[in-house]
Amino acid sequence: MARWEPNARERLVRAALDLFTEQGYDATTVNEIADRAGLTKTTFFRHFPDKREVLFAGQDTHARLLADAITEAPSPATPLQAVGAALDAITATFTDDRREFSAKLRSVTAGNSELQERAAFKRSGLAKAMADALHKRGISEPTAGLAAELGIRAFYHAFDQWADPTNRQTLAELARHALGELRSATAALG
Amino acid sequence: MARWEPNARERLVRAALDLFTEQGYDATTVNEIADRAGLTKTTFFRHFPDKREVLFAGQDTHARLLADAITEAPSPATPLQAVGAALDAITATFTDDRREFSAKLRSVTAGNSELQERAAFKRSGLAKAMADALHKRGISEPTAGLAAELGIRAFYHAFDQWADPTNRQTLAELARHALGELRSATAALG
Repeated sequence: MARWEPNARERLVRAALDLFTEQGYDATTVNEIADRAGLTKTTFFRHFPDKREVLFAGQDTHARLLADAITEAPSPATPLQAVGAALDAITATFTDDRREFSAKLRSVTAGNSELQERAAFKRSGLAKAMADALHKRGISEPTAGLAAELGIRAFYHAFDQWADPTNRQTLAELARHALGELRSATAALG
Repeated sequence: MARWEPNARERLVRAALDLFTEQGYDATTVNEIADRAGLTKTTFFRHFPDKREVLFAGQDTHARLLADAITEAPSPATPLQAVGAALDAITATFTDDRREFSAKLRSVTAGNSELQERAAFKRSGLAKAMADALHKRGISEPTAGLAAELGIRAFYHAFDQWADPTNRQTLAELARHALGELRSATAALG
């Protein structure tokens, strides 16, 4: 039976991100990531299918958090109010000690087109999870998709601001503010 | 000097799409695509870096069409009016004889996660091209990004309807209608 390794998943994610930052994504091997984390290659592959997925490990959890918050929003909530609840739920998991980690993640992704592609796919997956949850509340298209898009847009915009080490606001505050700005912008579309 | 092959690019795209449809994307090699098109592997690589890019060949042209139409829209045009002009410009290139080809392309992409990732990246690239053109008209964020998003959303929704062989409307009509519906949906966000 496989030995239980405490925090193996998190150790692998941190080791991978450090190595990608130091020597580049392409130059880093799974063996090096496992070594840096003090774990074996076998342990790595118990957690991730390949080195790319290390950076997108939270996708399912994030999708579920967003969808559950929309499902559980009180019934009189408008589409954007439900989306606001979803932003509250997901941003609460980004505690201040994750800011530096997030800055590194953003920088590694920006430097590699394969990772940018994967990130665009993650983004559309999160938007779809919100739109599907809105459908279950009886919101039809195109309203549901649009509300979800505003939520995703607010989240990523806020994340970019928050990942800046000089920023002092919480991700929750930034996301709520961004969602409000987007709502106002709908009136300026013409 | 390389021999000039008439319509090589288009022949390669059609051969690739036929093979992907018949035997699957993963099972198809560049050699088979070149053979089917009656061309050589060398000719293939003069046109495309790999078999995946065959399916995304029009991306730069599409981005330019969208951006140029926004740039050239008359100065009193609102953000959404400029985006409407961009949709007119791009949809005019999707003549009715491309409908069957588009249906195949949609079906091949839907069946493969690597292609879906690449397609999501193309989508975000086209949206960015429109948003950048709107910035140059003096439209700031988040309005520019939102207007571009509505345009992209209208285009892809219309494309899905149009690629259905039973549909009889033009892509231009479908896209204009979809953009109008999205504009109305902004009032239902709450």
